Amino acid sequence: MSPQFEIPKTQKAAIVEGPDSPLKIVPDHPVRQPKDLAPGECLVRLECTGVCHTDLHARKGDWPLKAKLPLIGGHEGVGTVVAIGEHTQSPPVKLGDRVGIKWLAYSCLDCELCRKGLEQSCPNQQLSGFTTDGTFQQYVVSWTSHVTPIPDALDSYEAASILCAGVTVYRALKYSHTHIGDWVAIPGAGGGLGHLAVQYATAMGLRVLAVDTGAEKRELVKKLGAEAWVDFRESKDIVADIRAATDGQGPHAAIVTAANSSAYAQAVDYLRLGGNLMVVGLPAHASLSADIFFTVTKSISIYGSYVGNRQDAREALDIAARGKVKCYYETRNLDSLLETYESLEKGEIVGRIVLKIRE
Amino acid sequence: MSPQFEIPKTQKAAIVEGPDSPLKIVPDHPVRQPKDLAPGECLVRLECTGVCHTDLHARKGDWPLKAKLPLIGGHEGVGTVVAIGEHTQSPPVKLGDRVGIKWLAYSCLDCELCRKGLEQSCPNQQLSGFTTDGTFQQYVVSWTSHVTPIPDALDSYEAASILCAGVTVYRALKYSHTHIGDWVAIPGAGGGLGHLAVQYATAMGLRVLAVDTGAEKRELVKKLGAEAWVDFRESKDIVADIRAATDGQGPHAAIVTAANSSAYAQAVDYLRLGGNLMVVGLPAHASLSADIFFTVTKSISIYGSYVGNRQDAREALDIAARGKVKCYYETRNLDSLLETYESLEKGEIVGRIVLKIRE
Amino acid sequence: MSPQFEIPKTQKAAIVEGPDSPLKIVPDHPVRQPKDLAPGECLVRLECTGVCHTDLHARKGDWPLKAKLPLIGGHEGVGTVVAIGEHTQSPPVKLGDRVGIKWLAYSCLDCELCRKGLEQSCPNQQLSGFTTDGTFQQYVVSWTSHVTPIPDALDSYEAASILCAGVTVYRALKYSHTHIGDWVAIPGAGGGLGHLAVQYATAMGLRVLAVDTGAEKRELVKKLGAEAWVDFRESKDIVADIRAATDGQGPHAAIVTAANSSAYAQAVDYLRLGGNLMVVGLPAHASLSADIFFTVTKSISIYGSYVGNRQDAREALDIAARGKVKCYYETRNLDSLLETYESLEKGEIVGRIVLKIRE
Amino acid sequence: MSPQFEIPKTQKAAIVEGPDSPLKIVPDHPVRQPKDLAPGECLVRLECTGVCHTDLHARKGDWPLKAKLPLIGGHEGVGTVVAIGEHTQSPPVKLGDRVGIKWLAYSCLDCELCRKGLEQSCPNQQLSGFTTDGTFQQYVVSWTSHVTPIPDALDSYEAASILCAGVTVYRALKYSHTHIGDWVAIPGAGGGLGHLAVQYATAMGLRVLAVDTGAEKRELVKKLGAEAWVDFRESKDIVADIRAATDGQGPHAAIVTAANSSAYAQAVDYLRLGGNLMVVGLPAHASLSADIFFTVTKSISIYGSYVGNRQDAREALDIAARGKVKCYYETRNLDSLLETYESLEKGEIVGRIVLKIRE
Repeated sequence: MSPQFEIPKTQKAAIVEGPDSPLKIVPDHPVRQPKDLAPGECLVRLECTGVCHTDLHARKGDWPLKAKLPLIGGHEGVGTVVAIGEHTQSPPVKLGDRVGIKWLAYSCLDCELCRKGLEQSCPNQQLSGFTTDGTFQQYVVSWTSHVTPIPDALDSYEAASILCAGVTVYRALKYSHTHIGDWVAIPGAGGGLGHLAVQYATAMGLRVLAVDTGAEKRELVKKLGAEAWVDFRESKDIVADIRAATDGQGPHAAIVTAANSSAYAQAVDYLRLGGNLMVVGLPAHASLSADIFFTVTKSISIYGSYVGNRQDAREALDIAARGKVKCYYETRNLDSLLETYESLEKGEIVGRIVLKIRE
Repeated sequence: MSPQFEIPKTQKAAIVEGPDSPLKIVPDHPVRQPKDLAPGECLVRLECTGVCHTDLHARKGDWPLKAKLPLIGGHEGVGTVVAIGEHTQSPPVKLGDRVGIKWLAYSCLDCELCRKGLEQSCPNQQLSGFTTDGTFQQYVVSWTSHVTPIPDALDSYEAASILCAGVTVYRALKYSHTHIGDWVAIPGAGGGLGHLAVQYATAMGLRVLAVDTGAEKRELVKKLGAEAWVDFRESKDIVADIRAATDGQGPHAAIVTAANSSAYAQAVDYLRLGGNLMVVGLPAHASLSADIFFTVTKSISIYGSYVGNRQDAREALDIAARGKVKCYYETRNLDSLLETYESLEKGEIVGRIVLKIRE
Repeated sequence: MSPQFEIPKTQKAAIVEGPDSPLKIVPDHPVRQPKDLAPGECLVRLECTGVCHTDLHARKGDWPLKAKLPLIGGHEGVGTVVAIGEHTQSPPVKLGDRVGIKWLAYSCLDCELCRKGLEQSCPNQQLSGFTTDGTFQQYVVSWTSHVTPIPDALDSYEAASILCAGVTVYRALKYSHTHIGDWVAIPGAGGGLGHLAVQYATAMGLRVLAVDTGAEKRELVKKLGAEAWVDFRESKDIVADIRAATDGQGPHAAIVTAANSSAYAQAVDYLRLGGNLMVVGLPAHASLSADIFFTVTKSISIYGSYVGNRQDAREALDIAARGKVKCYYETRNLDSLLETYESLEKGEIVGRIVLKIRE
Repeated sequence: MSPQFEIPKTQKAAIVEGPDSPLKIVPDHPVRQPKDLAPGECLVRLECTGVCHTDLHARKGDWPLKAKLPLIGGHEGVGTVVAIGEHTQSPPVKLGDRVGIKWLAYSCLDCELCRKGLEQSCPNQQLSGFTTDGTFQQYVVSWTSHVTPIPDALDSYEAASILCAGVTVYRALKYSHTHIGDWVAIPGAGGGLGHLAVQYATAMGLRVLAVDTGAEKRELVKKLGAEAWVDFRESKDIVADIRAATDGQGPHAAIVTAANSSAYAQAVDYLRLGGNLMVVGLPAHASLSADIFFTVTKSISIYGSYVGNRQDAREALDIAARGKVKCYYETRNLDSLLETYESLEKGEIVGRIVLKIRE
C-alpha cells in the first residue's frame, strides 16, 4: 500500500513577482493539490535545496533567455514524492520515494535531441526555477520522468549540490576524452563546482592540476586529491606554470567554469597538443575568444557541456553515495536566501549553500 | 632492378631569400644529390604542384609561426621518387614510385601525438614549404615515411590539390561526427576547399547546404551535389536562411574555412542543437568568438581540424581516384607563381591553380 | 480539429490460439475501443504489413523466448492513428498521422538501457506480434511513444519493410565502425535484408562486396550498387575469393544475417585485420564459433546489433523517403499469410512480402 | 658524450634448436655486435625477464602460427640500450636508456593497421621470442622504434611483467567501453594477468567483481581493490551469483583471459544488457561459442584485444610507476626456465615469475 501524505493548502515560498520586484518570502503561497496534477506530474515535499549561481542569473534576468515571472527559483532540491498525477503511465517513481529536482525538470523524450541522449538541450524542455517554479518553496511540482531517485546511502543535504554542481562537472569530465593517467586542469578548483570536480577527476584516475588562490584552498584541493597546484594570484605566467606542472606539456583537458572570456583563451594556450577544453560556465555575455590558428594547429577540441542528462545524474549521485565525492556546504534557512544571493554575488561563499526547508 | 634516374646538379626554383626579399625564380638552384640524402630521406622529381593560401602566409610571414629563410614554398607537389637515402630502413616507397608531397613533410612517429594518430600536430614535425623547402622547384627532398603514394587511376594534376585542400576538407568531414542523412553547411562552397568539400560530403551521403555567392558558383555546387544554397550577398539574414534551408533546425555540422572571426560566431548561431563546428581555416590573427552561453546550452562541439594524417591522405586520394571527387583547377607555369599569389590575395582564383613543373 | 474515425467493433485477424493450434484467419476478432485505451496507448488502423522471418519464429515457438498465446503476429505495419488513449501526456503523434508499427512496440524510456539509447534491449519492452498483438489484423493497439511517423514522400507499402528489415541493416551498417571507401561484405545480399543493406551501404559511400548465388541476384545487387560479387555456390574457397575481391586484404566489416554458425566463423577468417563483424541474425539455436586466437590477433570486434532504436528508425525511413533505398516486395492479401509462411520456410521468397490489409 | 659499453662476443641463452629439441641453456651463444646492427636496430643488455604463458605456446608449437627455429623465447625483458645500429634515423632512445622488450618487437609504422594505431596487428610485425629471438638471453637485438622507455620510478623487476601481462589487461580495460562506477568481471582475478587487472580497474574507478577460487586469492583480490567475489568452485550457479553480486543486473564488462570456450559463452550469459566482452586469451584451439540470439538481443559487443600498442605500453608503465599497480612476482634464475615452464603448465604459479639475468 502506498504511504499517505497530508498536503497543506499553502506554504512558504521565495517569490519574485515581476522584473523589478524584490525577492519576497511569503508564508501562504498556494500548494498545487494532487487532484490538479496532470498525468506525468508529481508533487515533491522538499527537505532542502541548494543555491546556485544560475539562480542568481534567473533573478537578475541578465541571460539571453528570460525566466518566467512571477518566479520561484531553485533547482537543487531533495524531498519526498507525496503525490503523482492521476493517469500517469508507468511512473518510474512511487509515493514516498526520495528524489532530487534538478535544473532539467522535463524533456519530451521524443525529439531528435532526446532520442540521441542530449535531453538537456531538448527544445521542449522545462527548467526548474526558470521556466517552471523551482525549489525555493516547500512543495514543488515536477515530472515523474525527470525527478532523480536519491541513493539510500546519500544524505539529502549532500545530494542537493550533487544534483547540479556535481552533475555538471561530472559530465564535463566524463566527456572530456581523457582516461586514467591524463592530466586535467581545474581552474577555480577550490570553489563550489571546482572542489567537486577535483574529487570526481581523482576517482576516475585522472591527475588533477588545481588552479585557484590562497593557502586554504590549496590545502583543501590537495586533501581532495589534486597532485599539482598553481596559485593564479602568485603566478607570474599562468600558462607557463600550468605547463611546467604537467610534464612540461600541458594538461590533456581543462574544465573551465569561469564566466570570463580570457579563461577560455588561456586554456587553448596551456592545453597539451590534441587537448580538450570543456566549456561549462554560463556567463551572461561572453565569447570564447580562442585563437583560431592554435585551435587548429594544436588539434584542440572545445565542447559545450550543459549540466547532464538523466544517466549522468544517476552516475554522479551513485559515485557520491559510494563516498568517492563529498560536497562541502553550509546550511542556512530558506529565509536567508536574499543574503545568500548577496554573498554569492560578492564571491564570499566557500563550497556550496544548502537551505533547510523542512525541519 | 630499380629504375635509374639522372639527377642534374642545378634546377629552376622559386625562392625568397630574406624577410623583405622579393620572390625570385632562379634557374640554377642546387639539387641535393642522392649521396647527400640522410637515411629516411628521398629525392622527388616534381611533375606539378598546387598553390595554396598557406603558401601566401608563408611568403608574407603574418602567422604566429615563422617560416625558414631563405625559403622555397609549396606543399601540393606530385612527382617521382628518383633517389632514396642510403641506409634507409624498410622504405615504404621505392625508386620510380609516383608520390605526393603534402604540408606535413615529416613527423617523428614516436611522440605521444604520433602514437595517437595526431601526427599533424607532432612537435618534431617538418612542414613542406615552411620549415623545409617545398615544391616550387624541380627536385624536392622529403621523407620516405610521409610521401604519399598516388593511386594509378589519379592524374598528377588532379592529385596535387587533393593532397592539401582535399585532405583538409576530407578530414574535417570525417571527424565532424555526422553520418548519412545529416546536413552539413559549407561556407565558401564554390571556392578551392569548398568545392571539394561539397563532393566529399555528397559521397558520404551527407546533405550539403552550400553558402557562397553568384549564379556561377550556385550552378557549380548544385552540379557537384549540394541540395540547398544560400547566397550570402543576397540573404538578409544568413542564420535564418540557413536554418530554413535545413529542416528549420539548422545543419548538424559546419565546415568553416573562413579567415574571419564572424564566420565562426555565426556558425554557433545557425548550427542545430548538438551540432559540430569544424574549424579549418588558418587566419593570421583571429579568434573564434563563439558565444559561451549558446555553445553550452546548445551542446555545441568545436573541433580544430588540421590538414590530415597519413591515413586521411590515403583515403582522400583513394576517393578521388575512384571518381567521386574532381578538382577544378587551372594550369600555369612555375614562372607565373608571383602573379598567382597576387590573384590569390585578390580572391580572383576560381577553384585551384596547379603549376606545371616538368614538361 | 482532429479528424474523426469510425471504429468497428470487430475485425479480420490472423490468430494462433495455442501452442499446437493452426493459424486461423477470423473475421470477427474484437477491436479494442478508444475508451478502453490506457494513457500512452493508441489505436492504429492498418493499411498494410510486411511479413518477416521473425514472425515465423514466433509462430513456431523455437526461440529461447516464448511469444504470448493466443497471438496475433506481425511487426512491419503501416496505418493511421485513429484513437489515442485519454490522459496521454503530450503524445508525439496525433489523430490522422500515418505511422509505422515496428518490432519494438514499447520501451520504458526510463531504465539504464533506455537512458543510454539502447531501448531495443530495454527489459520492460513490448514486442509487436510477440509479447503484444501485432499487425496481422486490421486495428492494432500500440504506444504513442514508439509508433514511427512515416515521411510523406514514402509509400506505405515501401515503408513496411523498411520498419524492420531496413532499420535492422541500417543500424548494423551505422554501427559497423566503417566510413566512406571501406569495404563491407554482405552475405545474402540478394535477400530481403541483404538487398536493402546493399543500398544503404552504397548510399553511405561504402564499397559493397555482395555474396549470394545465381545470375538474377548478381544482376540485382550490381544494379543496386555492389562493386564486387562472390557466388557462394560457384566459389571453391569463399574466404580467399572474398579477400581477393577486396584489395586482397578482406572487407573492413561484414553484416551477417545468417542463421548458421559457420557464416560467423567464416567472417572472422575473411575480415581485414581490425575488422568488424555485425551480428544481426536471430537463429533459434546457434553459436558464434569464432576462433579466439584470430579474433584476438586480428583485433576483430563483434557486435550484436538488434533491430534499431527510435532514432535509427527515423533515419532509415528518411533515407528511403529521399529515394536512396527501395524495397523489392510482392503484395499479397492477409488471407494468404499461411502460404507466405510456407514460402518463407522453403526460402522461396525474393525480396519481401507485404500484405494488403485495407482496400 | 654517450656512455660506452663493453659487449662480449658470447653469452648465456636458453635456446630450442628444432621442433623436437629440448630447451637448452647454452653458455656461449653469440652476441650480435654493434657494427652488425642494421639501421633502426639496437642491442639491449638484459637485467631480467618475465615468463609468460605465450612462451609456453611458442615452445610447444601448438598455435596456428609457428615460431622461428632455432628459437630463444621471452618477451618481458628489461635492460639497458648498449648499442644502436649505425645510420639509425632520429632514434627515440639513446645509449644507456633503460628500456623494455615487449611481445611486439617491431611494426612497420606505415601500413593501414599502423597508421590507425593498431600496430599490434601489423602484418609486417616482429614478435619477441617468436619471430625474432627474445629475452631468454643476456643481450637481445630489438628495434629502437618499439623498445619502451621504463619510468625512473619503476623497478626493473616490477616493470618486466607490466610489459606484457600489464599492458594486455590495461588495454582490455581501456577499450572496454566502461567508465567510473561500472562493474567489471575479472575471471582468474588471482592469477598473473588477473591480479594486475584488478588493480588497473580499481585505479580507473571501476567496480571489480573478482572470480577465482580459494581463501588466499580471495584475500589478495580484496586487498587489491575488488568489491565483490565469486568462488567458482563453491558457486552452484556462476551466472546467477555474478549477476547477484553486481546489482542483480550483471557487470558492464568482462575481461576474459581464459583459454577455454565455455568462459566466453558464460560471459555472454552473465553480462549486463549492452555489456562488453573483452577477449584476451590466446588458446591453442578454441572458439568463442557465444549464443547468437542473446548476443544480438542483449546488444553485446565482443572485442578481440591483443596486447597493446606503444601508447598503451607507456600508459600501463606510467600507472605502475605512480604506485597504482604492483605486480606480485617471484624471482628465479634463467637456468630455472625449464622448471618454470613445468610449473606454468601445471598451473602452480602464483602471480608472475621474473628471471634474473644480470647480477
